[in-house]
Amino acid sequence: MKIISVDERTVPLTSDTSNAGISFSSMTASAVVIEIETTAGRFKGLGFSSYGRYGHGGLLKERFIPRLLEAHPRDFEDEVTQGFSMARFWETLMNNEKEGGHGERSGAVGVLETAMWDAWAKSEDLPLWALLEKNIGHVNDNGTPPGQTIVYASGGHYRESMANTNQLADEARISLDAGFAWFKLKVGGETTASDIERIESVITATGNSQLVAIDANCAFGNQKFDEHFLEIDKLNLRWIEEPVNPLDYEALSNVVDLVQTPIATGENLFALADVMNLLRYGGLKPKRDSLQMDIILSYGLTEYFGMIKFAKARGWSQRDFIPHAGHQLALHVSAGLGLGAHEIANAQDNPFYGVSFDTKIQNGIAILSDNPGIGIEYKPSIFQYFDGMLD
Amino acid sequence: MKIISVDERTVPLTSDTSNAGISFSSMTASAVVIEIETTAGRFKGLGFSSYGRYGHGGLLKERFIPRLLEAHPRDFEDEVTQGFSMARFWETLMNNEKEGGHGERSGAVGVLETAMWDAWAKSEDLPLWALLEKNIGHVNDNGTPPGQTIVYASGGHYRESMANTNQLADEARISLDAGFAWFKLKVGGETTASDIERIESVITATGNSQLVAIDANCAFGNQKFDEHFLEIDKLNLRWIEEPVNPLDYEALSNVVDLVQTPIATGENLFALADVMNLLRYGGLKPKRDSLQMDIILSYGLTEYFGMIKFAKARGWSQRDFIPHAGHQLALHVSAGLGLGAHEIANAQDNPFYGVSFDTKIQNGIAILSDNPGIGIEYKPSIFQYFDGMLD
Repeated sequence: MKIISVDERTVPLTSDTSNAGISFSSMTASAVVIEIETTAGRFKGLGFSSYGRYGHGGLLKERFIPRLLEAHPRDFEDEVTQGFSMARFWETLMNNEKEGGHGERSGAVGVLETAMWDAWAKSEDLPLWALLEKNIGHVNDNGTPPGQTIVYASGGHYRESMANTNQLADEARISLDAGFAWFKLKVGGETTASDIERIESVITATGNSQLVAIDANCAFGNQKFDEHFLEIDKLNLRWIEEPVNPLDYEALSNVVDLVQTPIATGENLFALADVMNLLRYGGLKPKRDSLQMDIILSYGLTEYFGMIKFAKARGWSQRDFIPHAGHQLALHVSAGLGLGAHEIANAQDNPFYGVSFDTKIQNGIAILSDNPGIGIEYKPSIFQYFDGMLD
Repeated sequence: MKIISVDERTVPLTSDTSNAGISFSSMTASAVVIEIETTAGRFKGLGFSSYGRYGHGGLLKERFIPRLLEAHPRDFEDEVTQGFSMARFWETLMNNEKEGGHGERSGAVGVLETAMWDAWAKSEDLPLWALLEKNIGHVNDNGTPPGQTIVYASGGHYRESMANTNQLADEARISLDAGFAWFKLKVGGETTASDIERIESVITATGNSQLVAIDANCAFGNQKFDEHFLEIDKLNLRWIEEPVNPLDYEALSNVVDLVQTPIATGENLFALADVMNLLRYGGLKPKRDSLQMDIILSYGLTEYFGMIKFAKARGWSQRDFIPHAGHQLALHVSAGLGLGAHEIANAQDNPFYGVSFDTKIQNGIAILSDNPGIGIEYKPSIFQYFDGMLD
């Protein structure tokens, strides 16, 4: 397998949403195209950044694309089979990168690796979920067969126009009607009383508190908010997400000990080295809590395999992994490896909204198509950013 | 105080050295100039990246410089005194940056903050060490008065031309003769036997094993190398630096428990959030081990103050802080706050080699001048990179 070209472009992703931490008014993302040549012909792989941590144009141009273009096709070969090896592709990207400092570059590597998975899957004429099932294996302990995954709706952002809770309740109701398994809303931006009011309006709308998860986006930093969490704990929610600073394992462990509600976290940890610490020190429990590392933001699927392996050795299951952000890579990995669920952004002004149109959603399940690759071509809100890059 | 302009440039820093982890053949750095206007006039502050993690051109252009240029002078004012506040300058840089992911951007913020410290100190007509002493306070528990700091030589790299240990011994002897307090060499690149041979040649040359520290540059990753460390422990060295992966606190704690030799680490942790975990889980002990976070690579001095504060609350002293990399910011902070020592790169082909020529080194101590700012202008090996930026 030979790399013919690698292109990248930084695009603005403006949105009027915000969470408890940041505004998304100046958010950017990277669109990447890798063209490869194999014995089966030439194929273009598409990669697109995940949401929330800015594009990677500078790092891609300065370090990671030059390394790919300078590499020899042999650098990507498995030493035994001589076939293409994603692990060796990944090692080429990480050549002369020091240990530690897992931010930014982890997303640059992840978006390039995404494009390469897309290209590789296309060269094998397979959807990525099937390539993963074939080469890695699907663990069917979440109740869905290969090519399918549970999907939930992630919404309930703070908005200028969302001053009252009626709209929030409507959004939750519409999401469940549309076939999502459960609904997640943002909290932590205001007072305990307003959080409870927001949550209760959604519980009323859905009719079942287990269909309601909340995301605090680290609103509580490194501080103790015991009474706040104890109030929320009474509501019997599906999970409390990112209650504290993502790296404050002591504060996280305190929350885990305090409440009965499951905890979900990990979207702001970008490397196996950090996930090892999360599992060692964060107090989380397998088969109860969820791990939400973002596959693209954390060095791609090669690193994600390492996270799964480390977690499994400590009693976790693939089902406990519910990756962050509704991107097509996460959709295919969830359906290919049998992860716990796929998150789908619910804000219609967000390009990550929904799934590719060749994916069917019904009864809480996404059923993926047999189209080769990861399917960015079938998701116009993302595919638009590649305009002119595929000529 | 008003920001007039911010310029940046990425420069190549080629060197034929390598450590146990990476080669430095394609290393880059960022040179930054911030021009400010105060009631005292206009001043240009210079910042230059620290060593070993690449320049930050992309991130500076994409996010951090635009934020500074879009800010209002009021955004940098202390809300009470109305004077310039570096904390508020820092908050402007970090606007709309999410928690976690502390790599790359931490160096971009750090190099901009460095330039701002240089500009601010110049506008006060003070060397930075004196500005820090005046505004923050000097803790004189390391035996040196304000404006002075202990200095040690960091060298002994692996080189093509360093096949035998004679050169290594010469390098150590020359360093102590030149007035450095102790000498550090690289290990971990080869076998235990070759490490011991390298170390013993330096002990013989210096005549005192307490004048010899070693740096493994994380050579041992997440693996156990108990016998290796037990062999080295017998040599009674000053410290063992970065024995394992910087984020593997469990592996670090195992090494700390295993050996009597003090441990030094932290140069690949780039945020207070990570340092909190290091101190909680790494097994390190105050007044024995050393903390080596790099002030520029880890969001600058504002974040470094937070690290010192957190560490002091757990029994550590400013003297236990020995920052990574011999840059002018670290020199002034060491001399201004009374840190444990300043590291000086010993490889003459490395632009970080030595200190500014207005700094005198004798008897293990660096005596800084009264020239305003951090003194990059007096260090030609770094100042050359600003050619044309100051017109």
